[in-house]
Amino acid sequence: MVLQTLPQYLCIGDVDMRCLLSNAQEALIQTPFKHLCKLYNAKIRLSLTKYGVSIALFRTMDLHILDHRLRVTSICKNGLVNFTHPLIKLIFLRKRTRCKFFSLTETPENFTVVLDEEGFKELQPSEHLQVESSVWLPLNVISNGNASNSSQAVGVTKIAKSVIAPLAQQHVSVFMLSTYQTDFILVREKDLAVVIHTLEEEFNIYREVGGEYSAVLSQDVRNGFQKNGKEAPQPTVHPVLIPPNQFCVMSLDPDTLPAIATTLIDALFYSSSPKEGALPSQDLDCIKFFSFSLIDGYVSLVMDTEAQRQFPADLLFTSSSGELWRMVRIGGQPLGFDECGIVAQISQPLADSDISAYYISTFSFDHALVPEEDIVSVTEMLQQHRKEPAC
Amino acid sequence: MVLQTLPQYLCIGDVDMRCLLSNAQEALIQTPFKHLCKLYNAKIRLSLTKYGVSIALFRTMDLHILDHRLRVTSICKNGLVNFTHPLIKLIFLRKRTRCKFFSLTETPENFTVVLDEEGFKELQPSEHLQVESSVWLPLNVISNGNASNSSQAVGVTKIAKSVIAPLAQQHVSVFMLSTYQTDFILVREKDLAVVIHTLEEEFNIYREVGGEYSAVLSQDVRNGFQKNGKEAPQPTVHPVLIPPNQFCVMSLDPDTLPAIATTLIDALFYSSSPKEGALPSQDLDCIKFFSFSLIDGYVSLVMDTEAQRQFPADLLFTSSSGELWRMVRIGGQPLGFDECGIVAQISQPLADSDISAYYISTFSFDHALVPEEDIVSVTEMLQQHRKEPAC
Repeated sequence: MVLQTLPQYLCIGDVDMRCLLSNAQEALIQTPFKHLCKLYNAKIRLSLTKYGVSIALFRTMDLHILDHRLRVTSICKNGLVNFTHPLIKLIFLRKRTRCKFFSLTETPENFTVVLDEEGFKELQPSEHLQVESSVWLPLNVISNGNASNSSQAVGVTKIAKSVIAPLAQQHVSVFMLSTYQTDFILVREKDLAVVIHTLEEEFNIYREVGGEYSAVLSQDVRNGFQKNGKEAPQPTVHPVLIPPNQFCVMSLDPDTLPAIATTLIDALFYSSSPKEGALPSQDLDCIKFFSFSLIDGYVSLVMDTEAQRQFPADLLFTSSSGELWRMVRIGGQPLGFDECGIVAQISQPLADSDISAYYISTFSFDHALVPEEDIVSVTEMLQQHRKEPAC
Repeated sequence: MVLQTLPQYLCIGDVDMRCLLSNAQEALIQTPFKHLCKLYNAKIRLSLTKYGVSIALFRTMDLHILDHRLRVTSICKNGLVNFTHPLIKLIFLRKRTRCKFFSLTETPENFTVVLDEEGFKELQPSEHLQVESSVWLPLNVISNGNASNSSQAVGVTKIAKSVIAPLAQQHVSVFMLSTYQTDFILVREKDLAVVIHTLEEEFNIYREVGGEYSAVLSQDVRNGFQKNGKEAPQPTVHPVLIPPNQFCVMSLDPDTLPAIATTLIDALFYSSSPKEGALPSQDLDCIKFFSFSLIDGYVSLVMDTEAQRQFPADLLFTSSSGELWRMVRIGGQPLGFDECGIVAQISQPLADSDISAYYISTFSFDHALVPEEDIVSVTEMLQQHRKEPAC
């Protein structure tokens, strides 16, 4: 995260004008500040005060539309053996593949694989492979440093109000993928115009093409813009499951990936086969959840503490030692990909309480990870929420 | 190799008896030496000399019949993807499998996999998998130190006259698997009685059962003994191919296997797929040959120098630095498993010239590896051999 000193609102001065401004007048006032805006990557906000017009340089956040066209797929549990060859290539043999966005998450139901089109080519069609029909684009909020924001919360909580809620209101379905490094918000390519239109007020939006970022304006995509006109259905309150496992969110230097290769292969591909002399997990309520991602050269791992003990302690790192997370799995029946507002339903109350959360969608269910110490209050919050589903 | 001081012939004394001995007389003479025989793991040989009978403690070598029931299989080139899951388990995840004998050899034709029954269970039947119908048993010659033998040659050369030639004469088909550590002679389980009968003169034969070795005598297996009664066919002289690659025969500490996992996986499973920015091999006459074995905890690797460069130099070791080998591939058409004397045809002349050789049979062809410096004389020897096939 690049820390900058510019606060969110930088008051430049007050002008004594107690009337509404025409567009031409606005433009006239803004002209002297154009250079400053460009320099600080900011927008001007004019607002009427009792003294006149307040001219503020409004420090927006950047939203990047990354240059990956993603597919969301699922490999059934007993079909994994048929995909070991391409998956190991995608995870460990970067020289042999052009795939730059790869994520594999094991849940009790299946293996969710999210990957770009180069990676997707490696997966042979099979009865064991389900492929969601859309192309998804990953969005990424770049926080430019926000001195006036006291929140220390991380993860999806940071973008709950600025991204998740507005998209839910516009009936845009999102697929979330939090990693150690950032939170990817996947939206369908066909929804991009709505997304840009919805978020451009709050964000400077840039689209990455071939490593270069160029600013995107709503009018650039207006041709394709169709407001999602569906009526908001009564929001479904999904049942949640809170297993007792404690989870870690970790990373490692991608150059040390070979050093944990056999352990990682074991955890990803063989954890369901019996191990000589190993005792079955003591707690039967624990659920299997293991996520690995290798995105633009960054590795992220989410696993429970039992799995973590298999790894050498000196290679994996986490942001603060011993940081543990508890899982809230959302959904009693598989959620599908069309329902909107699922992430918002969880992330909004977490944001209200300033509780950090990672959020990982999979093919069947969604998974929020909240700090161990907050699990009691989160549980209460969710119970409250179930009683008042309309709020 | 355990070095012992007992020479091959230990003359104990001469007895003045210029006549043939009856069995009873032989037994009477041997009695005082029984304890000594047991102590030195030796046999008594009585022979007539002009002074009488020479009594020698004959220091035989030990032949171990190892406690592995092996299957010889072949995976076709484009079928490997379907077997990546079980093969990676067998190579890297010792805790998850009971397999104790595993060998995988890539040739241009296919992947030959030799493994014990526990390992074989991991391979699902498939159109891509060919399985030789027999159960094979590995034999292993344990050299007890042989002070009177000046040969420094290693590999199959050491056992050419004592094992390979006698078995060929008895029409026993063998499948050879030389490793860094030793040379396994695989014989069909149904041929075991013939094998024991043929080799018991020269060897103390022990059979391993559950980690314990017990002496085997021909009469123990005589019930099942059927001399292979086939007429010796006119020996076929197979064409040979001598590719320009230079090979290394190496090992590594099995505990460091994880450290080379990604490189080894790359070499074994992905070497045929294109690599970003890599140039194709310059020499088109080179043939792909890569062998990995993990047998009773010992790792052996055979690869050419091009493949070797991919591995970290500090982990793999060879018996003397820079020792390079050249390959003689035997067979123009796939050899099958029933022809006898193929190994003998090559190993006998090598033994006569005291040239070391590793020998690796695969599903389609046989491969001898001879020292780089001997390849010219070996080539001449084989050309000579082709002119005089009857010798």
